[in-house]
Amino acid sequence: MILAAERAARPSDFAAPAAKQEGRFCPFCPGNEGSTPHEILRRRAADAEGGDAWSIRVFPNRYPALRVEGDLVRAAHGLFDRISGVGAHEVIVETPRHDLAFADMSLPAIAEVLRVWRDRIIDLSRDERFSYVSVFKNQGAAAGATLAHEHSQLLALPNVPRDVAIELDGGADHWRRKERCLTCDIVRQERGEGVRIVHEGERFVALCPWASPTPFLVWILPKAHASHYESSSDDLLAALAGTLRSVLRKIGSALEHPSYNLVLVSGSLRGGASPSAHWRLEVAPAMTTSGGFERASGCWINSTPPEDAAAFLRKVAAR
Amino acid sequence: MILAAERAARPSDFAAPAAKQEGRFCPFCPGNEGSTPHEILRRRAADAEGGDAWSIRVFPNRYPALRVEGDLVRAAHGLFDRISGVGAHEVIVETPRHDLAFADMSLPAIAEVLRVWRDRIIDLSRDERFSYVSVFKNQGAAAGATLAHEHSQLLALPNVPRDVAIELDGGADHWRRKERCLTCDIVRQERGEGVRIVHEGERFVALCPWASPTPFLVWILPKAHASHYESSSDDLLAALAGTLRSVLRKIGSALEHPSYNLVLVSGSLRGGASPSAHWRLEVAPAMTTSGGFERASGCWINSTPPEDAAAFLRKVAAR
Repeated sequence: MILAAERAARPSDFAAPAAKQEGRFCPFCPGNEGSTPHEILRRRAADAEGGDAWSIRVFPNRYPALRVEGDLVRAAHGLFDRISGVGAHEVIVETPRHDLAFADMSLPAIAEVLRVWRDRIIDLSRDERFSYVSVFKNQGAAAGATLAHEHSQLLALPNVPRDVAIELDGGADHWRRKERCLTCDIVRQERGEGVRIVHEGERFVALCPWASPTPFLVWILPKAHASHYESSSDDLLAALAGTLRSVLRKIGSALEHPSYNLVLVSGSLRGGASPSAHWRLEVAPAMTTSGGFERASGCWINSTPPEDAAAFLRKVAAR
Repeated sequence: MILAAERAARPSDFAAPAAKQEGRFCPFCPGNEGSTPHEILRRRAADAEGGDAWSIRVFPNRYPALRVEGDLVRAAHGLFDRISGVGAHEVIVETPRHDLAFADMSLPAIAEVLRVWRDRIIDLSRDERFSYVSVFKNQGAAAGATLAHEHSQLLALPNVPRDVAIELDGGADHWRRKERCLTCDIVRQERGEGVRIVHEGERFVALCPWASPTPFLVWILPKAHASHYESSSDDLLAALAGTLRSVLRKIGSALEHPSYNLVLVSGSLRGGASPSAHWRLEVAPAMTTSGGFERASGCWINSTPPEDAAAFLRKVAAR
């Protein structure tokens, strides 16, 4: 767990009913740049319109879960473990337009966001205190967002978080026994069966995973083995932009524009390219409230089979 | 994950605004017994009032996540694993009174609920298809409840769910290396430090755990080593009723009666009493919405240190 007492003070667009949100001050809108912490990066998309000074801005989260300053200290406290809260917590504002949905952005603009994620990971991976970068996007209050203007976030962490570590260990174990990447095996089986496939392009496949914990969860996977997102070429990310927008638009059509989480799962920053890790994007519509059983067991009850979700998403138009 | 397509059809008290809930038909109220599936168990508490035919009723969930009928079949599907959805999903209606909160029930009535949990686990443990029983209570819509009348649920499962298995394995590993129960070690350290203790009675201790993933999470632990809840005596459960009600009342006072999950974490049904497993109850107020980071990493960001939560809960009256 990450302890971040200052985050209790952060503001929310969603604390008030939707009707009261009109006219609220938005720290992510053009003209309000001075109200965010110092800018780390600014980009202008190739197809930006004349009046836009920027298409994407990156800056530290004002209410960070982790802080860049300080040494990485690992210590025992009796039986327990403690790591100093060193890391980075950045905000990526994805568009200057307050009311433009991510899925309605142009493909070049989405590809620019994907390149910014890559470039920030590469920059942060040079800091030897960090072992993992999590990139995620919470869209809508039900998905945990506090501000409505489209943005993603990035956490550079001093350790690989638990569930990612379990998965990477599982992949490494599969590799040791079979000398095959488990995710490549899954992609091959899924393409053969077809029933859980949502969309297949030249370089990416989108599918509803076997035993999907929540309804309409979609994984977007590079078809060619690649352990680290940050090793992606501009070409690959342009292809990813197409698949991602298509999946988001299908989910928007199918489920009437739900809140959703978008998460990158990628390899550890330590150790370089791996034959057993295989990065992916997850798109998870916020469809269910977890109860005590899910909380304590790690086991989810899903009433929508991934095969049904995939069949529905295959049919529905990407608009 | 458990696939349960029929559950999509279940009704909810919370789909409509609170004002519209008045006067809704409640299947858990006296007089409506015919609208629930066949009764498995009925109890009348020692202090029940004259007019009450029952204090507690247990019956199968009408929208079960798992079904009692059928053989347990484990099969591979290519790379994937499948287990037939065999299990039990029961509802425990904890009081005949629609508007009585669990924390406002008498101690004998709460103790009777705790004995019913125990007795149902003992009964289900005789079925060799089952490996684990999860008992949980979702109170309020934010905690995943669909009906307001106080009730808990029970799932008998064909396998030990993932997060419980990870914890049991961790405890077994600690035992192998040290020949001590990890939870007993934690209880000893916490009682020595005191800062995370919420309440201590003769037989139970309530504490906010180290690195608590969510704010105001409380564990209630038997001070004497015990791997399985279902081995508890009536006396022990009477003591548990006192500690549990006190914790729920403190949380209710401190956080203005939040939605909460109450979950039992106990040993596997297979293998008998264990020196390394140690059962507990968890009380988890529903204070936060998880976002994409928590979802993908298993790592939670908590802005309330457990030491602060425990200090606050120690001070606040249990009312």
